[in-house]
Amino acid sequence: MNPIIGIIGGAGPFAGLDLQHKILTQTQATTDQEHLTIINWSEPAAIMDRTAYLLGETATNPGYAIAAQALQLERMGATVAAIPCNTAHAPPIFDVILAELEAAGSQLQFLHMIWETVYFVKERWPNLRQVGLLATTGTVRSCVYQAVFDKVGMQVIVPPDNMQEVVHTAVYHPHYGIKATGKPAPQAIDHLHKGATQLRQLGAEAIILGCTEMPLAITDSHLVELPVIDPTLVLARALIKAVAPHKLRPLP
Amino acid sequence: MNPIIGIIGGAGPFAGLDLQHKILTQTQATTDQEHLTIINWSEPAAIMDRTAYLLGETATNPGYAIAAQALQLERMGATVAAIPCNTAHAPPIFDVILAELEAAGSQLQFLHMIWETVYFVKERWPNLRQVGLLATTGTVRSCVYQAVFDKVGMQVIVPPDNMQEVVHTAVYHPHYGIKATGKPAPQAIDHLHKGATQLRQLGAEAIILGCTEMPLAITDSHLVELPVIDPTLVLARALIKAVAPHKLRPLP
Repeated sequence: MNPIIGIIGGAGPFAGLDLQHKILTQTQATTDQEHLTIINWSEPAAIMDRTAYLLGETATNPGYAIAAQALQLERMGATVAAIPCNTAHAPPIFDVILAELEAAGSQLQFLHMIWETVYFVKERWPNLRQVGLLATTGTVRSCVYQAVFDKVGMQVIVPPDNMQEVVHTAVYHPHYGIKATGKPAPQAIDHLHKGATQLRQLGAEAIILGCTEMPLAITDSHLVELPVIDPTLVLARALIKAVAPHKLRPLP
Repeated sequence: MNPIIGIIGGAGPFAGLDLQHKILTQTQATTDQEHLTIINWSEPAAIMDRTAYLLGETATNPGYAIAAQALQLERMGATVAAIPCNTAHAPPIFDVILAELEAAGSQLQFLHMIWETVYFVKERWPNLRQVGLLATTGTVRSCVYQAVFDKVGMQVIVPPDNMQEVVHTAVYHPHYGIKATGKPAPQAIDHLHKGATQLRQLGAEAIILGCTEMPLAITDSHLVELPVIDPTLVLARALIKAVAPHKLRPLP
């Protein structure tokens, strides 16, 4: 039997698709048959808004639903799984996922997107000390990136409040925001460029696209001359590495 | 429990993703949570090349693997499923899928992409009599479209042999073919336009993109002034209709 990669694909459903797409493009394959087995469980209705929970606006911890879906994936044969959602990695949610898996006696390897991003950065740019974070205000405030990078002695630079609002608007604006259009609208790209420019001025040596929607607008490998790190792409590579390291496409 | 749509997503894996993407874009939803539950089982290694089987080049009928994956999806709770692959709908393969499901006592509703395309055309353009088919040579020779449209008294026009080669090349050329690039290369688009032009001259009143890769290159609603029919999009809409007709986005 082929090893199976599980995707908790519903948070949100476009991010789940993007992760699956990146697993395909990061796999060395010349025929359909050479591609890896992936099960994408996309059940968005069961996973309550992560930011709303972190802000105390809803009482239901989405970690329980995420763990239930992970266990379903394991029952179907998945040996490794992940969720391409930044805020789901905040400890109040992620700790519940891990506790639930452990309580169920699960053997599933559940990857942590933010830690995978740290490993990736450390391996690729060992001397890098300061990364800039472009993310929604919810992700910035949840400190998911800051807390993890801090553990390896690296600093995460975030935009000052007024610029953070500009960056957040690039994702959430009802007309040109990436969530509304699903495409790179000129205003959204402009906002992200402004944010990246300020992060560079503040000392960032690379830019993390810390919102799963941002890679839909920024597909370049560099932004204001800094390398761009796409955690969804990093996670896709980590999932391939977990089941078939020989099929991982080399980085350019 | 939310109804679950199953996708046999491995034949090929990009076509599976495209179907899932189209289910999302054809669903009326303003939040992640309003999207439908979809399980995409993408296991390409288990499904042998459909055209190779139809041409007698391999002995293994891929219908057995497809049915096995459909049964897995049913076990996970899917009530409806489909496979976005044209040649899998040739009777030597599709009949095996249905027979295996029946033998297993399955209650799964397994949609037929080509019949769904017929229903769609009949509903949208009741007076249409002749459709042109752009497809790979394998699909054209398998007559999957011709046989089904014939049953409702409609004619499928295919390009003459020399032009069929040009169309086939748009998909399979090692450099600019859609399968190689996954994107609309200018030469591939040019080839498809040439094919469509000739189909129009031969009397086609609409163009079917009868290859799941073609919608990656042709995303317009019209081609040489004829309406374009994308069977993957039609299938996405049929899957939504099967579980949540009230969430189906109206056609423009």
